[in-house]
Amino acid sequence: MEALLRRRRGLVPALSAAAGRLRRARRLGHGAAGRLLVSRLFQPLSLQEGGEAGWEARPGGEAACRSQKLMVQGGLICPAGPGCYHYLPSAVRAMEKLVGLIDREMRAVGGQKLSMPSLSPAELWRASGRWDQMGRELFRLADRHGKDYCLGPTHEEAVTDLVATQTNLSYRQLPLRLYQVTRKFRDEPKPRFGLLRSREFYMKDMYTFDASEEAARRTYSLVCDAYRRVFEALGLRFVQVQADTGSIGGTVSHEFQLPADIGEDRLVLCPTGHFAANVEMISAEQTTCPTCGEPLTPTRGIEVGHTFYLGTKYSSVFNATFYSAENKLQLAEMGCYGLGVTRILAAAVEVLSTEDSIRWPSLIAPYQVCFIPPKKGSKEEKGAVLMEHLYDDLAEAVPQLAGDSVLDDRTQLTIGKRLKDANKLGYPYVIIAGKRVCDDPPVFEVWSQNTGEVMFLTREGVIELLSKVRVP
Amino acid sequence: MEALLRRRRGLVPALSAAAGRLRRARRLGHGAAGRLLVSRLFQPLSLQEGGEAGWEARPGGEAACRSQKLMVQGGLICPAGPGCYHYLPSAVRAMEKLVGLIDREMRAVGGQKLSMPSLSPAELWRASGRWDQMGRELFRLADRHGKDYCLGPTHEEAVTDLVATQTNLSYRQLPLRLYQVTRKFRDEPKPRFGLLRSREFYMKDMYTFDASEEAARRTYSLVCDAYRRVFEALGLRFVQVQADTGSIGGTVSHEFQLPADIGEDRLVLCPTGHFAANVEMISAEQTTCPTCGEPLTPTRGIEVGHTFYLGTKYSSVFNATFYSAENKLQLAEMGCYGLGVTRILAAAVEVLSTEDSIRWPSLIAPYQVCFIPPKKGSKEEKGAVLMEHLYDDLAEAVPQLAGDSVLDDRTQLTIGKRLKDANKLGYPYVIIAGKRVCDDPPVFEVWSQNTGEVMFLTREGVIELLSKVRVP
Ligand SMILES: [Zn+2]
Ligand SMILES: [Zn+2]
Repeated sequence: MEALLRRRRGLVPALSAAAGRLRRARRLGHGAAGRLLVSRLFQPLSLQEGGEAGWEARPGGEAACRSQKLMVQGGLICPAGPGCYHYLPSAVRAMEKLVGLIDREMRAVGGQKLSMPSLSPAELWRASGRWDQMGRELFRLADRHGKDYCLGPTHEEAVTDLVATQTNLSYRQLPLRLYQVTRKFRDEPKPRFGLLRSREFYMKDMYTFDASEEAARRTYSLVCDAYRRVFEALGLRFVQVQADTGSIGGTVSHEFQLPADIGEDRLVLCPTGHFAANVEMISAEQTTCPTCGEPLTPTRGIEVGHTFYLGTKYSSVFNATFYSAENKLQLAEMGCYGLGVTRILAAAVEVLSTEDSIRWPSLIAPYQVCFIPPKKGSKEEKGAVLMEHLYDDLAEAVPQLAGDSVLDDRTQLTIGKRLKDANKLGYPYVIIAGKRVCDDPPVFEVWSQNTGEVMFLTREGVIELLSKVRVP
Repeated sequence: MEALLRRRRGLVPALSAAAGRLRRARRLGHGAAGRLLVSRLFQPLSLQEGGEAGWEARPGGEAACRSQKLMVQGGLICPAGPGCYHYLPSAVRAMEKLVGLIDREMRAVGGQKLSMPSLSPAELWRASGRWDQMGRELFRLADRHGKDYCLGPTHEEAVTDLVATQTNLSYRQLPLRLYQVTRKFRDEPKPRFGLLRSREFYMKDMYTFDASEEAARRTYSLVCDAYRRVFEALGLRFVQVQADTGSIGGTVSHEFQLPADIGEDRLVLCPTGHFAANVEMISAEQTTCPTCGEPLTPTRGIEVGHTFYLGTKYSSVFNATFYSAENKLQLAEMGCYGLGVTRILAAAVEVLSTEDSIRWPSLIAPYQVCFIPPKKGSKEEKGAVLMEHLYDDLAEAVPQLAGDSVLDDRTQLTIGKRLKDANKLGYPYVIIAGKRVCDDPPVFEVWSQNTGEVMFLTREGVIELLSKVRVP
């Protein structure tokens, strides 16, 4: 493998070893129907020759921050109303990968996935006192019979009521760790920054039920560990800070924040990592780290996760009880845990991208590979068929990339123009049939966006390189 | 393999061949943490010893039809309000498998998945005339600024408006086949039959845009083919009937119906398959098949899919145009296509189950395999560890079943009681450590729910049998 990873500056003697290899026999039409063609993807016309996207012109399409601008221009989202967005095909692909990653980590801590209604009966919220407390942040409506609902921004009431119906719950069934990945609704006074602060968004919310405070604190720490693993897998720099419990309530709370200038939260951090807090949590006099005495560094963060140790705040309202080992009825000790799924997508684009080019955490890039065949009529034109073969061979040799490769068939455009588009969209790998596609054996140019490397590889070299790509 | 598939009545001489085999060395603790234990699943207590489910007692938990009764009792759904249900972990598993199957078929016809907001601005519906036309079926609400919305029951307006923003769309980008799998909302006057007629439900809706009527009809026929493949893969008997276009509009429409007594649609079918229609579509005088003259058979059906050829009904309202090959602006020819995702789940349970036992299309059963170890204190008790090893070995040998097997660790209960529960929940395979687990080599009892067979198999036989299970 190492021999195949020479830089542009180096020579590639190892490649000549592939010279004499015969092309494998190929079934007629193999893969042709299944190729994903860039010309057919539903994305804005700014990426098409001479086209213009109409999307930036809509309310919500303005470029208030980097991720919003790049996601609208790149055809990931389209404004659908104030604080509401269409998630377009590339965004859905990234989101489904992210949800797959979160699912795995939630299952690893015993999470069971359910799905609760968005229509949340008012009586649940009246019982907890939040029907009034949440004020205008709740979207409220009445059905045809005049019964009141809100659109759930969070589901502590609903899940506690659900668990309370299991009137014979035993300590042996605990802990229960229930979670969902669903749309949530919040009537933000000032929705802005695209998916960073929208009114309809996807959230992963977990609710846990334990038999004792000690067990609940163990659960709390397990879920925080899982959250850290999610951000580490994404390669995102994050801080876990002490946070206010706000309208959710409870006694202990942490936020997971991605440091970013655009962030709406103000944080203070110990420079050596002893201490991190939302400024809401500390007094104005506290300017030094309680552990080492160093001055605290102020920074801003985008909140992407929030955890709460709730105790019996909700279980006491809805009478969510279990039978202890001594056969006594006790209130369950609860926790709740949120990850902003669509917000993580936007925050990742915000912190990783350059001014005009999207960069993704590799694991969740909408597509892993973009193939760019030669321009129509160029002298490398016959390389087009070699590239199609490479596309099909890769799908066969590395099945996990089969649906993750696109072929930029806009061959009326130069390679340079298409490479520019590919660079904007941030495919982790771009494979070009340039001049050396006419070599014997053919040599492809491979751009790795995340390392900035350019490699010249034979067909076998490309397949070997890409067989190591991790997909979720 | 055949030798391993002897029935209860037959002898199993082939099994003794496995006698001398040594157990493979096993890494300490392998698989232990990852085993899915029945005692820990969030399901109603009617399935636990001495317990009672509180869920049937709620409004919406009453047994109005078979699927509703079985899905509430079996812990698949729990009533959350009139016509609204919590989808519990087993239902979410089945639904995610169904969505995976639908995704594959939609991709196979060039479908690109997106996700549109539930909050749908009133002005879109006013433009199409449906703000008034839909009447009280729309859930309506206003935001904090007094702007009107409905909760989208369908998305013709939204998607056409979205495509119309691509003002430079070219005929070369058509057909566009866009779809989503999202929650839909409809304020049913009388929600009933559980997920068969609920107010908040999951639907797959596809919207297609073609350059000509001819092309749009080709798309229509391709999507209908894909729908047929979905129902065939599920093993569900269905009919495709001519249908009324209702409030959606357009000129051609078909419904996909599962024949069932509980169905709310009245159908007439030619007994030899020439003709099938919703009675809404035919005159009272038409009692014979227009092709063969045979009397039409009346039957009832559950509508699980609906297709519409829309023409330019919506593209003309929102000005969704494209440039033709002659560079002239033309209106796109549209179609729309719905599959009731949660309704398919319930309808499958309705038509496949017995009075008191759920039966699933094998592809989408929540779990494929249930392992039942011996009762604690029984003389086969030492078989428990053999069964745990088998569970772990299966996960290793057949990775696609790794998350699809549960171990019924409620060993305080007899095998008979647990087998009864397993039968109720409809696991396609149940593996029991009965008397012959003490044989050398150990023999397990394997119940195949869908064929009704009982087999006696060694460890190797079980793994060989289950390696052939198809998962989506
Ligand atoms: Zn410090
Ligand atoms: Zn006939």
